[in-house]
Amino acid sequence: MIAQTPSPPYYAVIFSNVISDIDIGYEEMATKMMKLASEQDGFLGVETAREELGITVSYWRDLESIKKWKENSEHAIAQDMGKEIWYRSFKTRIARIERDYEFSK
Amino acid sequence: MIAQTPSPPYYAVIFSNVISDIDIGYEEMATKMMKLASEQDGFLGVETAREELGITVSYWRDLESIKKWKENSEHAIAQDMGKEIWYRSFKTRIARIERDYEFSK
Repeated sequence: MIAQTPSPPYYAVIFSNVISDIDIGYEEMATKMMKLASEQDGFLGVETAREELGITVSYWRDLESIKKWKENSEHAIAQDMGKEIWYRSFKTRIARIERDYEFSK
Repeated sequence: MIAQTPSPPYYAVIFSNVISDIDIGYEEMATKMMKLASEQDGFLGVETAREELGITVSYWRDLESIKKWKENSEHAIAQDMGKEIWYRSFKTRIARIERDYEFSK
């Protein structure tokens, strides 16, 4: 659901991706990585949705925590497998959240 | 699909939302707004996906073009209708893209 993030500034990793026809093991790995990410220092929340395109936005305290997560050894294996097997293409964007606002009924 | 954006820096509007049970007119308005957004000065691209959560990320040249799009009169009507009718909740985050990288087979 919508991530409950603190007041800006904080950071986001916008991961946009298209998966290949070989999806064996993908859901399992994605779930594992979401759990592992949520245990990292500096993790603030995550939002994800997929139709033809998959979009996962994870939120982080600072660039240092994003760097550490990218270098996490289990995550590094998942990234390699992603390139080898699961992703047809992806684009990763590192962003600084400057402002936010919300609405709820 | 994955938006073909220029080299950073540029800006993103991350719009995360949950729609209500009343979805009449929603798809039509969403399509209309995507088309209208793409015609605005400073628009760079858009990515969208929906499961339980909807995530739409639009990319913009600068904060000024985001401000103008928010204030666009047709978009303002759509925003009001969204709050009245379609959205249960949403969160909008304005972000500066600082870095990006991509992968393609």
